[in-house]
Amino acid sequence: MNTLTRLEAVIADRSSAKPDESYVAKLNAKGVAAIAQKVGEEATETVIAALTGAKGDLVGESADLIFHLLVLLQARGVSLSDVFAELDRRHGVSGLEEKASRTPKES
Amino acid sequence: MNTLTRLEAVIADRSSAKPDESYVAKLNAKGVAAIAQKVGEEATETVIAALTGAKGDLVGESADLIFHLLVLLQARGVSLSDVFAELDRRHGVSGLEEKASRTPKES
Amino acid sequence: MNTLTRLEAVIADRSSAKPDESYVAKLNAKGVAAIAQKVGEEATETVIAALTGAKGDLVGESADLIFHLLVLLQARGVSLSDVFAELDRRHGVSGLEEKASRTPKES
Amino acid sequence: MNTLTRLEAVIADRSSAKPDESYVAKLNAKGVAAIAQKVGEEATETVIAALTGAKGDLVGESADLIFHLLVLLQARGVSLSDVFAELDRRHGVSGLEEKASRTPKES
Repeated sequence: MNTLTRLEAVIADRSSAKPDESYVAKLNAKGVAAIAQKVGEEATETVIAALTGAKGDLVGESADLIFHLLVLLQARGVSLSDVFAELDRRHGVSGLEEKASRTPKES
Repeated sequence: MNTLTRLEAVIADRSSAKPDESYVAKLNAKGVAAIAQKVGEEATETVIAALTGAKGDLVGESADLIFHLLVLLQARGVSLSDVFAELDRRHGVSGLEEKASRTPKES
Repeated sequence: MNTLTRLEAVIADRSSAKPDESYVAKLNAKGVAAIAQKVGEEATETVIAALTGAKGDLVGESADLIFHLLVLLQARGVSLSDVFAELDRRHGVSGLEEKASRTPKES
Repeated sequence: MNTLTRLEAVIADRSSAKPDESYVAKLNAKGVAAIAQKVGEEATETVIAALTGAKGDLVGESADLIFHLLVLLQARGVSLSDVFAELDRRHGVSGLEEKASRTPKES
């Protein structure tokens, strides 16, 4: 199981905790708009880190962005596997072998 | 190899294409600021889809956000594995067994 | 009448035009979510211009951000004068004389 | 003098205060990236308020967005009058009489 799938499971687990025991539970208690706000904030921080920060800053902000995106997906009842399936469908990454034979390139 | 790791490889492969043959190559030719702008745009679309859209809209916008984030990481020379390592470090997802024994919960 | 008040009137005037005759009318026809998306995009462009652009870039992106914010306010039926009143209330700019006597400073 | 021009003067005045005495001075001490981050955050809050909030929420978030935009402009040494001049130039709001005679409509 890869990092994001594990993280999705951790977030699901924490969601049932009490708000004062878990950051995820606290975010969920605030509602989808508050979680979406965090995604927007982390995206801005990622943009700024990409333009003015060191690589380590971009790593940290990207991690925050992905984390809050996963919290948002779960709050709306969307599975990460559905997002992966959509990425596979759009960008032809279901297999590098397959990709090599496709034209035109989608990405 | 999971979806995002494959997608990272696809993006690396496309980066060396000519701008008129690949969307990734075209973005790279425009520079980091233009790629960061796309990340900001897709984040806003994700926020809006989470608040007003159907689940399918959120899936699609999240896929776009992740895709452009990967393009941004590569443009800055950051490996996805570094972001995964940071997520593992912050949220203790290197193993669910390990997680069960940790206190306090970080997420 | 100052620039923004005039611009608000222009936007109101254009809103009743046909979508193919006016950019404002076209945005309105797309709905509030599409207008909000433009505000998010222009905000990201403003952030990027502030960090990496020349002063002229920041002037241009700020103008775009304010313009689309006014379109959004009107689409939701909010008057610019209400926003000005809120700014006056929060930041004590109803008179510099008054400001000089206030403590503590809010801004 | 209108609200924004007065607010610009207030921000300039506060900028020379000590960081612990003024929110504007504290933001300036953190640097342009931190101010830009606030603009991004307030823009997301404005988007969310426009889509899910009451009119009063949108008024408040728009006021916050404009306030932080003015702080950002000043931190980069850009005058609000330059932004107004650009808006006049782009959207023909130097006079409603003039607007009536122009074709094609720019907005």
